[in-house]
Amino acid sequence: MYTAKVITVSDRCSRGEAVDLSGPAVEEMLKSAGYELLSSELCSDDPDSIRIALQKAVNEDAALIITTGGTGFSPRDNTPEVTLDFCDRPVPGIPEAMRYASLKITPRAVLSRSAAGIKDHSLIINLPGSPKGAKENLEAVISALEHGLKMLRGGPQNCSAES
Amino acid sequence: MYTAKVITVSDRCSRGEAVDLSGPAVEEMLKSAGYELLSSELCSDDPDSIRIALQKAVNEDAALIITTGGTGFSPRDNTPEVTLDFCDRPVPGIPEAMRYASLKITPRAVLSRSAAGIKDHSLIINLPGSPKGAKENLEAVISALEHGLKMLRGGPQNCSAES
Amino acid sequence: MYTAKVITVSDRCSRGEAVDLSGPAVEEMLKSAGYELLSSELCSDDPDSIRIALQKAVNEDAALIITTGGTGFSPRDNTPEVTLDFCDRPVPGIPEAMRYASLKITPRAVLSRSAAGIKDHSLIINLPGSPKGAKENLEAVISALEHGLKMLRGGPQNCSAES
Repeated sequence: MYTAKVITVSDRCSRGEAVDLSGPAVEEMLKSAGYELLSSELCSDDPDSIRIALQKAVNEDAALIITTGGTGFSPRDNTPEVTLDFCDRPVPGIPEAMRYASLKITPRAVLSRSAAGIKDHSLIINLPGSPKGAKENLEAVISALEHGLKMLRGGPQNCSAES
Repeated sequence: MYTAKVITVSDRCSRGEAVDLSGPAVEEMLKSAGYELLSSELCSDDPDSIRIALQKAVNEDAALIITTGGTGFSPRDNTPEVTLDFCDRPVPGIPEAMRYASLKITPRAVLSRSAAGIKDHSLIINLPGSPKGAKENLEAVISALEHGLKMLRGGPQNCSAES
Repeated sequence: MYTAKVITVSDRCSRGEAVDLSGPAVEEMLKSAGYELLSSELCSDDPDSIRIALQKAVNEDAALIITTGGTGFSPRDNTPEVTLDFCDRPVPGIPEAMRYASLKITPRAVLSRSAAGIKDHSLIINLPGSPKGAKENLEAVISALEHGLKMLRGGPQNCSAES
């Protein structure tokens, strides 16, 4: 059982002008998949604010860190840039598979700028800000994540034959 | 109705040794999709030449900037590198979807190194240099672009629920 | 007929604790596809060790350089980072297509962090370390590579209409 932490990135939610629906929806999915949830976080779209929230999650040793929001085209959408800059190693296959799955639902899937990467022993994945988009994207990759975390954190499956 | 500008990147066309067929083909598609076309540009494969053409298009406040050419393996193919270096924020889903659509037509689709990104309030997309490839690639994503431009430039759909 | 060189990246194989099965499997495929094989290389997962092996292959003027191993989530998996840092121009369509093909076989395909790029006149492609994964990934793109090498190294197909 790995730990997971959800970070909602939203100016409006962080100012109390909107209710965060995506964070709780994602937490529900992670709980059902067997993750132990650390307390969730809410931050603005400011790059420093996102960076601080990511660093806090890494300091708490969350195995899986999921962000929702800030992946689109709005001028304040900075989450992918901050995430890739923060990570040591990108994991391009995760956003590719999320967009590929979304593309079967809507052509607008190409507009998602989501990224994923590894920082120390944590896997970080960006999800879109809408509850529907966040759930659809996570659904597309969630079954593979546990194996990735085993490789990242050691364990019986961490053999070179699978590297 | 958004403005669009087409930049043809080609040593041979810029020297007058070849006729640019891709630029006009792409302009035709953009016109049909409702874009207002700014005057097109022709530049060599030289990185500085590409950069100057991109900056001019941004200065003209083109909402959508489309390049054709310079996305392959030839030693002078530099368009994606210049584009990503020029942009503030990459949009990886657009080239992914273009290659994914091309892959259904030809295995050589994997050789396209096209990129896309956002610079200030402009969306920049690289297309291949052949008229057939350029049209097929643009066809794969054109229907989603207007929504992206609305998010980028403000408007009624620019709400945090879709970020 | 182009030259190809296979580099196996593996701490365990380089220490003699495991037998390299992927390198020979990949060489077999390349031979069948008509490539002239240069002598293969074995290096550890150390970034410097990978970089030296890549530089040696470029110095030998290998047209195609294939690495196997080091593309996963283990803390020592560094091959994609070293490869992208070493290359002049990324070729994102190759790993995208490899992962897209693998995804039809296993959801774990999203965990492959493989990259590809061009350095001078050589095309470098990362494959996973397992023989099964390496063969499946190479199978997905091998038919397109010769055309890419023709563009990269000059030849009759190197015309601007295909750039």
